[in-house]
Amino acid sequence: MPSMSDQDSHQVRVGVYGASGYAGQDAVELLAKHPRARVVFATSSTYAGQPVPFTDLHYIRPDDAPLNPDTVDVVFLALPHGVSARTAAKALDAGIRVIDLSADLRLDTPESYKQWYGHDHPHPALLQTTPYGLPEFSRERLRGAQVIAAPGCYPTTTLLGIYPLLKADWIQHGAPIIVDAKSGVSGAGRDPKPHLHFVEVYGNLSPYSVGRSHRHVGEIEQEMKKINADAGMLIFTPHLLPLDRGLMASIYVHLAEDHGSEDIQMLYEETYAGEPLVRMLPKGEQATLKHVVKTNGCAISVTAVAETLVHITSVTDNLRKGASGQAVQCFNLMFGFAETEGLL
Amino acid sequence: MPSMSDQDSHQVRVGVYGASGYAGQDAVELLAKHPRARVVFATSSTYAGQPVPFTDLHYIRPDDAPLNPDTVDVVFLALPHGVSARTAAKALDAGIRVIDLSADLRLDTPESYKQWYGHDHPHPALLQTTPYGLPEFSRERLRGAQVIAAPGCYPTTTLLGIYPLLKADWIQHGAPIIVDAKSGVSGAGRDPKPHLHFVEVYGNLSPYSVGRSHRHVGEIEQEMKKINADAGMLIFTPHLLPLDRGLMASIYVHLAEDHGSEDIQMLYEETYAGEPLVRMLPKGEQATLKHVVKTNGCAISVTAVAETLVHITSVTDNLRKGASGQAVQCFNLMFGFAETEGLL
Amino acid sequence: MPSMSDQDSHQVRVGVYGASGYAGQDAVELLAKHPRARVVFATSSTYAGQPVPFTDLHYIRPDDAPLNPDTVDVVFLALPHGVSARTAAKALDAGIRVIDLSADLRLDTPESYKQWYGHDHPHPALLQTTPYGLPEFSRERLRGAQVIAAPGCYPTTTLLGIYPLLKADWIQHGAPIIVDAKSGVSGAGRDPKPHLHFVEVYGNLSPYSVGRSHRHVGEIEQEMKKINADAGMLIFTPHLLPLDRGLMASIYVHLAEDHGSEDIQMLYEETYAGEPLVRMLPKGEQATLKHVVKTNGCAISVTAVAETLVHITSVTDNLRKGASGQAVQCFNLMFGFAETEGLL
Amino acid sequence: MPSMSDQDSHQVRVGVYGASGYAGQDAVELLAKHPRARVVFATSSTYAGQPVPFTDLHYIRPDDAPLNPDTVDVVFLALPHGVSARTAAKALDAGIRVIDLSADLRLDTPESYKQWYGHDHPHPALLQTTPYGLPEFSRERLRGAQVIAAPGCYPTTTLLGIYPLLKADWIQHGAPIIVDAKSGVSGAGRDPKPHLHFVEVYGNLSPYSVGRSHRHVGEIEQEMKKINADAGMLIFTPHLLPLDRGLMASIYVHLAEDHGSEDIQMLYEETYAGEPLVRMLPKGEQATLKHVVKTNGCAISVTAVAETLVHITSVTDNLRKGASGQAVQCFNLMFGFAETEGLL
Repeated sequence: MPSMSDQDSHQVRVGVYGASGYAGQDAVELLAKHPRARVVFATSSTYAGQPVPFTDLHYIRPDDAPLNPDTVDVVFLALPHGVSARTAAKALDAGIRVIDLSADLRLDTPESYKQWYGHDHPHPALLQTTPYGLPEFSRERLRGAQVIAAPGCYPTTTLLGIYPLLKADWIQHGAPIIVDAKSGVSGAGRDPKPHLHFVEVYGNLSPYSVGRSHRHVGEIEQEMKKINADAGMLIFTPHLLPLDRGLMASIYVHLAEDHGSEDIQMLYEETYAGEPLVRMLPKGEQATLKHVVKTNGCAISVTAVAETLVHITSVTDNLRKGASGQAVQCFNLMFGFAETEGLL
Repeated sequence: MPSMSDQDSHQVRVGVYGASGYAGQDAVELLAKHPRARVVFATSSTYAGQPVPFTDLHYIRPDDAPLNPDTVDVVFLALPHGVSARTAAKALDAGIRVIDLSADLRLDTPESYKQWYGHDHPHPALLQTTPYGLPEFSRERLRGAQVIAAPGCYPTTTLLGIYPLLKADWIQHGAPIIVDAKSGVSGAGRDPKPHLHFVEVYGNLSPYSVGRSHRHVGEIEQEMKKINADAGMLIFTPHLLPLDRGLMASIYVHLAEDHGSEDIQMLYEETYAGEPLVRMLPKGEQATLKHVVKTNGCAISVTAVAETLVHITSVTDNLRKGASGQAVQCFNLMFGFAETEGLL
Repeated sequence: MPSMSDQDSHQVRVGVYGASGYAGQDAVELLAKHPRARVVFATSSTYAGQPVPFTDLHYIRPDDAPLNPDTVDVVFLALPHGVSARTAAKALDAGIRVIDLSADLRLDTPESYKQWYGHDHPHPALLQTTPYGLPEFSRERLRGAQVIAAPGCYPTTTLLGIYPLLKADWIQHGAPIIVDAKSGVSGAGRDPKPHLHFVEVYGNLSPYSVGRSHRHVGEIEQEMKKINADAGMLIFTPHLLPLDRGLMASIYVHLAEDHGSEDIQMLYEETYAGEPLVRMLPKGEQATLKHVVKTNGCAISVTAVAETLVHITSVTDNLRKGASGQAVQCFNLMFGFAETEGLL
Repeated sequence: MPSMSDQDSHQVRVGVYGASGYAGQDAVELLAKHPRARVVFATSSTYAGQPVPFTDLHYIRPDDAPLNPDTVDVVFLALPHGVSARTAAKALDAGIRVIDLSADLRLDTPESYKQWYGHDHPHPALLQTTPYGLPEFSRERLRGAQVIAAPGCYPTTTLLGIYPLLKADWIQHGAPIIVDAKSGVSGAGRDPKPHLHFVEVYGNLSPYSVGRSHRHVGEIEQEMKKINADAGMLIFTPHLLPLDRGLMASIYVHLAEDHGSEDIQMLYEETYAGEPLVRMLPKGEQATLKHVVKTNGCAISVTAVAETLVHITSVTDNLRKGASGQAVQCFNLMFGFAETEGLL
């Protein structure tokens, strides 16, 4: 924790890596307006030297970032896969806390990591000690933590959508859980790739990584199994939507027994009763992207579509509850602030 | 058939009802460019008196349309549900053929109609005699027909997507077939309703009529059962996409036995080998809206996502193969022209 | 001013008329988050009974609104032209202050009103006493005012764009000032009109009210002349943009003498040096909608395009600095709060 | 001309360079459907080996293209600035005709080229002999030509918009002509640049190259002066629109004398009376992008906005009449076909 000797003494000093990417930009914006945070540096390989929106800073190169506890208390890592783990290790060695927005620290074992990423993890010890930063599941492990792996948009939106059914064990054991997901383009990052050219995306809708090939399948199944060991496999089809931000997971779950819409609605409302950032829509109203874009919450609607089949729509802003908002929520827990500070 | 005495003698004279709606506009455009058709009138209650794009005509009120065989050989009905059946009956009584783009004549029985539409059918006899105009299923019944019920965007795209598996009986009997569908806004019609205001749709994605409540569920299941009586029920969730035209059905089907991606790909390629308007994408390429928008075809991709679970993406332009293009295809069969005349 | 006897005593009690329209929605959102305001009612003819976003209220019918000083201190009027003046008069008679977002109180004389609106003004006395609520021009008249006419998106964006040249009298006297303006669709209101249907706007760009026929021409010229009586006439061409919010005025102004880009840039920077909500972009950077959407500010860039011809790009969010944000800025001045309270 | 010995003997053999870019793609599509053309090769550095849509070909590298008269009669060059002139020279040397869609051959003198492009022209002789391919101005020079420089979207749309006033000499001599232009993103090419990323363009509107800095200013002024030597300078401000295709030039012209709307409308209608690809809208209707997108024409509306000031809206599809459609129109003239063959 920072010392308490001056006007800014109540503020945690935060460094943001990868701050010019879309998730990084939103993280800086949220932190700049956060009463208990102060952004002390923001890195960008591509935009070094240019001003950082919402701050008085200029982007610096990652190698020039002052990784020492006299300057910074915690770093947010909005870095590409692979780079993130190395930076996390370096920061932790220097006595600086870490909130990682990448997928590098989310899997529990080196074996699982190798299965989904095709190579050995550079710092396998980190995998076992880093808690999965979905506060609605495990906020106790996040309070005061030194390092947190904040999950991204697809895992967060999917897991929040099925959590009540898994926890209450209403699911049909072993039956596949089908997730038809749709994401705004900012989820694909800011690098100017051919398929992200405006003309390619405009007026289009494209599935990709259909079935079980997307890397986040491993992570989502890992967390599903922790909640309910009898959960079936995940069938996951993401699509690229022609809009900038917003993510929808359309989920189809088989139940073991018939439950009416009323029961299911009540289960969800009770499960999320105390959650400030999860909003159950009233029965009959469907969740849409407009419910969540530019907010830090998740909205959910449920419909019993057949005797033992439930349809769930779960939505988030992929850059907020699906990235930077989630990271700030973790930050609040890490430093003992009100969990929604700077998020409402 | 028209008489053969003048320059236009090779052309069928067509009247289009509801010609200022989005499907009606596309029908007029296709017919105006069709070498074997001549549009002789186009009705519009709202735009009567204004010029009809792609023609030298002006819209007339439906009551002013000259429904007699000296003037017109066939009428296209792009009319609202309910109005269409009455106009069809009137035209047929006058000895004029009918291609109906509405849902009024698609269900096979008065009972089924009453179940889905909540009231008695005004002309129940028409239900039994009118063939379902999906040429890929039943083109023989369409050749020379007096009246055809051309199916719309959701049924066409869904049915073409699952047809090979149903026909080959590879499906798991009784297992639900899940269709997560997404449609461009023109599918909702041209009436200026609040939820179709630009600002409401822009940047949004909205599910509606989730599960088994959409009226087209009955029609799709009816046709599924005809192909394979052991097909399970349909779970159908449509979404409104923030774009003008294009429709995607993302379909999840349980198989009775394990079939690899190669086998499934081959089954689809063989089933659709002779079809000029259905395009199987090569294995590994996913169907997107760009494959079909502003064309009269359907594009399909298939992926084996688990041992006995297949994911299919089927796409059409909702106003073309999902409406007016389909109607013109039926028109070609009705009058004995090449099936793709005016459609490639 | 409200009494000071309870916890909410520091908060001004605000009623919002027309609160379900796009400007009204944004006004409620800004006021709900404003530390010195409390929304006590929100009216909507169309959505009466439904919940009001960002509050615990439900919409009430305008006739049910409690227009008395025990309940409400000030009303925001986001009402259609004509209705607004009548409500303003009623509120003022009851001793309640008024901030009017409509155009009803912006013209200075009954004659001018009749010229642009085609009928007599219902409360002509109000025209002479109501100050024009563009704080950057006349904040002194707004402090403590009983009623303010907050200007809308086109006048605000245009006037802020040309103000420095008019005030410094660098303009060529009598030369027309050309404004090619582009607005997001929310500026056209929430009523579901045919030309606002998603499909009509998507992929399109449409000019309307070309030249001198738009009603706001009179209002803009009135304010131009107040700043510089030698200003030429306004040539104004608005366009409908295929996006939800954001407004750009592209302005072409003839100067009396040659001024280089440096001089013009400096004139603008000096004129707006103390303005918290007007941002001059650095020389060479052009203003775009992304600079202002979802903010309460205006951004401006200037370019000397020929010896005596200047191009100015002025942008606002049409619902914020062009409507509700402006109204809240006026509210802050009216009640003596910091001018940017609730706006940064 | 091709020999006449086989079934394809009536078809001109066409090679397309740069065929995977947006203009190149449209050129291939138009030529593939053109009854008098046969595409014999299509080059692409980036996509070599992949199939060419609308044909049975695969892209080849430009160096592998068979530039000899036994194989190809004419080449379309949809190549980047600089590369195009070299390829044109090579093709002409080999006895193959050339239609150039780049700006390389459009300026009349090496001096002018150097002024706007900053370096010497590689084949200056070509500048003097190559006609400017805007058929509405100079179709006689295009009939049977060996090489044509087809103008692009901004020059075409602007020049067609002001041509009648220049030709009739109604303009105020020396007064600047102001063009506020807006273009869809495909006009910026297919290379994945950061500012063309979907997220950057979505919901935005951006001016660029404001005033007199855009390279096409020189070309437009050159052609303006040919029509009317007393035309004033061009003030030109392009903007990037958040849509894929479509271009609008909003033009403000000072007249020497007062002309009413009727007169101006009539002048335009008479000037374009015989033009198959220029459509004058009826008085009172404004030109919008929907009038022209996916067509090969230009639509124009005119409004007298003050006594001696005219506003013109001129629109094209930037990839059609602004690129490939124009090139095909030139091709038809070059080979003596009907001018609109393959374009209606």
